[in-house]
Amino acid sequence: MEAGFFITFEGGEGSGKSTQIKLLEKWFERKGINTLITREPGGSVGGEEIRSLLLRGGTDRWDQLTEILLFSAARRDHLTKKIWPALNEGKVVISDRFADSTYAYQGFGYGKDQNMIQIVDQLYTMIAGTFKPNLTIVLDIDPQIGLRRSINRAGNDEQRFEEMDLQFHRNLREAYLSLALREKDRCVVIDGNQTPDKVHTDILKILEERFKC
Amino acid sequence: MEAGFFITFEGGEGSGKSTQIKLLEKWFERKGINTLITREPGGSVGGEEIRSLLLRGGTDRWDQLTEILLFSAARRDHLTKKIWPALNEGKVVISDRFADSTYAYQGFGYGKDQNMIQIVDQLYTMIAGTFKPNLTIVLDIDPQIGLRRSINRAGNDEQRFEEMDLQFHRNLREAYLSLALREKDRCVVIDGNQTPDKVHTDILKILEERFKC
Repeated sequence: MEAGFFITFEGGEGSGKSTQIKLLEKWFERKGINTLITREPGGSVGGEEIRSLLLRGGTDRWDQLTEILLFSAARRDHLTKKIWPALNEGKVVISDRFADSTYAYQGFGYGKDQNMIQIVDQLYTMIAGTFKPNLTIVLDIDPQIGLRRSINRAGNDEQRFEEMDLQFHRNLREAYLSLALREKDRCVVIDGNQTPDKVHTDILKILEERFKC
Repeated sequence: MEAGFFITFEGGEGSGKSTQIKLLEKWFERKGINTLITREPGGSVGGEEIRSLLLRGGTDRWDQLTEILLFSAARRDHLTKKIWPALNEGKVVISDRFADSTYAYQGFGYGKDQNMIQIVDQLYTMIAGTFKPNLTIVLDIDPQIGLRRSINRAGNDEQRFEEMDLQFHRNLREAYLSLALREKDRCVVIDGNQTPDKVHTDILKILEERFKC
């Protein structure tokens, strides 16, 4: 594996992203590879402050476009202050969510919205140019099961999104699956209904096959 | 004057915007016309929260692009939650700064930056479409005098920008003057070195001549 490698985890609520990131971090550690674990929205000091604005309050607190602009500002801060510097130091950076979440949540969540998808794409190009993750792992799970897992979890601050209806989460799933089909070189869909160990093994297989880890 | 009228005040630090807005508000009040006084960044509840992120901290806290995205998010919230509803109710809305400040500060402040100017324009169209103020009053003042006035003022939370060097403020002035030349139908430059009463009289003259107030 080359120095400076960027892995993102995507998927609906309760799809097991946090668990898998921890397992993967330990795996890299055992191989003596330096990792940086981060998340979106947030990840950097400024990004976390923007995150706290985004995740609290009622579901109608911000209109869709304001929300996308805030996510983009947080992402830009995250990239410039944390992700790019770490990649330049040769680290493996693993992020719990990245740009594909904005595409899925804001472009598809409220119903597929071509205008919003175009704006999301335009903003991404504005903040990141042609930069993309080396690998994006989409953890796929039935939205009903994922939501139940997530709501039962303690210390969860993403309540605002979970209160949205099930259809919203079905739309997210459709977004992730269609994205993964379109960007096969970058994205891999893994069945999140399996045990955490089996999901982890599937992820390692991808790393070995594609990137000779 | 037609119902629903949007006036913005622009100009460097210490150019006298707040004083003039108060005088103009009283003038409209005496005529029995309902006004809404607001400001940018901020103006709405969400916008004020974003404003507090923007105006505190060191001058290198956010990179230029992050800053523009935050200003744009705050502006979108301000437009959707406050400005557009008030205009729809037929009010005169007066804002202390609006989009031209982003154009001046982010597009010119650090030295004229065509790339940034293009991004600022692109973002404005994204959040506001073809909507523009009916009248923009640019209070023009020598940057050295304006800065001295502003720094001496109590309770000023715009410290971050004032600490930037004088050249920055000279760039702002150039930006406002060139903008006013380009958009003559919307913008009026008024000499802010005059007494507050004289500036107020000049503003009323414009309102009478152009809009039959």
